[in-house]
Amino acid sequence: MEEKKVALRELLVKHPADIAEVLSNLSDEKAAELLHHLYLRRAAAEPLGEMEPEDSADLITELDRDEATKILARMDPDDAVDLLEELPDDLQQDILSHLNRTQSQILTKLLAYPPDTAGGLMSPEVVALPLTMSAQEAIDYLRRKTEEAETIYYAYVVDDAGKLEGVISLRDLVLARPETQLSALMQRDAVSVPVNADAEDVARLFDKYNYYALPVVDADRKLLGIITIDDVIDVIRDETTEDIYRSHGVPLEERVDTPWYVSVRGRLPWLYFNLLTAFLAASVVGAFESTIAKYAVLAFFMPIIAGQGGNAGMQTVTIVTRGIALGEVPKGEGWRLLSKELVLGLLDGVAMGLVVGAVGMLWKHTMTLGLVVFLAMTFNMITAGIVGTVIPLSLRACRLDPALGGSIFLTTFTDTLGFAFLFLLARAFLPGL
Amino acid sequence: MEEKKVALRELLVKHPADIAEVLSNLSDEKAAELLHHLYLRRAAAEPLGEMEPEDSADLITELDRDEATKILARMDPDDAVDLLEELPDDLQQDILSHLNRTQSQILTKLLAYPPDTAGGLMSPEVVALPLTMSAQEAIDYLRRKTEEAETIYYAYVVDDAGKLEGVISLRDLVLARPETQLSALMQRDAVSVPVNADAEDVARLFDKYNYYALPVVDADRKLLGIITIDDVIDVIRDETTEDIYRSHGVPLEERVDTPWYVSVRGRLPWLYFNLLTAFLAASVVGAFESTIAKYAVLAFFMPIIAGQGGNAGMQTVTIVTRGIALGEVPKGEGWRLLSKELVLGLLDGVAMGLVVGAVGMLWKHTMTLGLVVFLAMTFNMITAGIVGTVIPLSLRACRLDPALGGSIFLTTFTDTLGFAFLFLLARAFLPGL
Repeated sequence: MEEKKVALRELLVKHPADIAEVLSNLSDEKAAELLHHLYLRRAAAEPLGEMEPEDSADLITELDRDEATKILARMDPDDAVDLLEELPDDLQQDILSHLNRTQSQILTKLLAYPPDTAGGLMSPEVVALPLTMSAQEAIDYLRRKTEEAETIYYAYVVDDAGKLEGVISLRDLVLARPETQLSALMQRDAVSVPVNADAEDVARLFDKYNYYALPVVDADRKLLGIITIDDVIDVIRDETTEDIYRSHGVPLEERVDTPWYVSVRGRLPWLYFNLLTAFLAASVVGAFESTIAKYAVLAFFMPIIAGQGGNAGMQTVTIVTRGIALGEVPKGEGWRLLSKELVLGLLDGVAMGLVVGAVGMLWKHTMTLGLVVFLAMTFNMITAGIVGTVIPLSLRACRLDPALGGSIFLTTFTDTLGFAFLFLLARAFLPGL
Repeated sequence: MEEKKVALRELLVKHPADIAEVLSNLSDEKAAELLHHLYLRRAAAEPLGEMEPEDSADLITELDRDEATKILARMDPDDAVDLLEELPDDLQQDILSHLNRTQSQILTKLLAYPPDTAGGLMSPEVVALPLTMSAQEAIDYLRRKTEEAETIYYAYVVDDAGKLEGVISLRDLVLARPETQLSALMQRDAVSVPVNADAEDVARLFDKYNYYALPVVDADRKLLGIITIDDVIDVIRDETTEDIYRSHGVPLEERVDTPWYVSVRGRLPWLYFNLLTAFLAASVVGAFESTIAKYAVLAFFMPIIAGQGGNAGMQTVTIVTRGIALGEVPKGEGWRLLSKELVLGLLDGVAMGLVVGAVGMLWKHTMTLGLVVFLAMTFNMITAGIVGTVIPLSLRACRLDPALGGSIFLTTFTDTLGFAFLFLLARAFLPGL
């Protein structure tokens, strides 16, 4: 008991992010016990806000409703909403109904914004100052608000209706003469984000212009909240994880510590879908069974030609997909990309084809076999270049995520066509077929 | 001519990041011409700092040395260094020798830090305040320094020898009584970054604790510079691009607009290396040529069994690699991961095996063929789970990047062993072999 108290005291002086890490690494039961002790010392809200929402939601369900409600009331509203979103509907409603009216209203409003929009990212705790305030009054006001606001490095100036009129940095406030009116100090053409803007577009905006914070407004330019750069880092990190996962058919919510019975349900559908496409490619092989029975050596070249097409195509898919994600492929640039990848496919194809052709010729002492595998390889590499460019561009044109299963569509093409090229050329050129 | 002037005037009111975008999308010749006009209006330095260093370096080589030097002198030193690093050695030295002495010294010192360390990220333009200064003096000092400093939201307090003693935020300065000494106001246990720290570790630190800026110190805690969160976003973005590129064998410096003759040199080595491993897997097929000649149907199952192993293995590689990148796989946790993937491999293997087994049995009306492909599939999926976990963990144990060619090593295993399982089982069970 005494030992536990010491451990708790040591934990309490740590950064909330470190306490969050400790909580994440404990079993659910032990984490809930620790969270209860943190709660008793009013130190539970901040670490919960630092955890992944799925994990913090798991934890909060372990506490009794009264405790859970009190902890949520003390969390930053943007973190609280992320957590609430992960809770079962009935528990979510139950907690909301036990919060005080203002808090419940704020959170209900935030819950209405989809998580992948500016509204889902923003904090409502933004400092809005009236146009007629003086610099000194603004500083005094900030002094009082400092606990509540998400950031006071930027304050926004609004008119009587709450419409965003300008932005002013704490820096400018401090450097100004105290009696100057905000309307004279503020920067008028404040960049703002519409509340329904896509979260990834917001992230790109921060990345490009190096903003630290941006105000969020509704259609009438009414100030609704603020997005800070640390929220955006999470978006960039999660977005990339999702892109990588999608392209390899990994369920988006899987992490290393996901239990196997959850993983298997997530991974199997993709494997079954892959199996279907594998049967498609294999059916080409099946159609040429008699060819293979006569020239079993063709089976040797099958995986080489199909595999190299897949590898070269994935290089193309990767470059194009990443280029789109980084905003480096303007619409209409598709043809330029395609012609580049065509040239590359031809060159790489000849380079690979010469090697496998030579192996075919020297190993079996037939010029024709060498020619067949040379041509099959070259054709398949050109196919890979075309398909590898067209897939991500088409997905974008259909407003789908270009990273979505690029590899599976690609290898279906490179396998099916690779086998077809090989066997058709064999049938055309090899004697006795 | 008149038209051009109007266009230039319109451009000049834009954000430097937008001007940078315009420059990036022009041909080298036209971009250099525009840069020259921007230079004449003292507006060239900022947009150059917003461009990718490779692109800005290309541009600067188009200008005459005198102009180039003057533009570099006006750039933020951390941006100038990134650009200088991309220049040929002789041009770099030439420009350095024509800068004034202070600038040349600052840049030479910065050039000595490897780009992927804290020293390579930091800006030397950090505000260092003496312990004995008062809050009001500090504000007055910041007022004068506001143009030069990278950020004035945090100022660092140093002793007479320049040793970091504490940190103070502009917020605290503004809210303090004017006469209070900094030594009484500052936070003493300031988190700092050693100058030789790995850039990716620095990024993780910012991500975890939501810092906006961190001071960089040498071994004696002497204050050397500051890293701000916008530098870190670039690291996170580039790091992920590199991880994705590495795992698909794409040259790290390739972008969508890299010309084909550069791309082909970067991509071919990886394709040749892949070809080598493809021959390795194919040699298993070659060894069983007589088996295939007798049972050509085995060629139908070859790509299915090898391919599904590759797909399942890539799911595992992706989860484990990303887990390592996000710092979610503590050392010593390997066994727990391996046992999870073993169970998944077995389950997924049986699930896939039943389908291909049924196809084998029903298509060719032989129970034995069904059993052979069922077992081969199951074994290969288990192999995929093991190899997919072991590869990234081993790469990390050898202090290599876990993302490095994960897919190529994996598919070599799943192809080679997948073929071997299939043919060995066929030889053991199928009649007449």
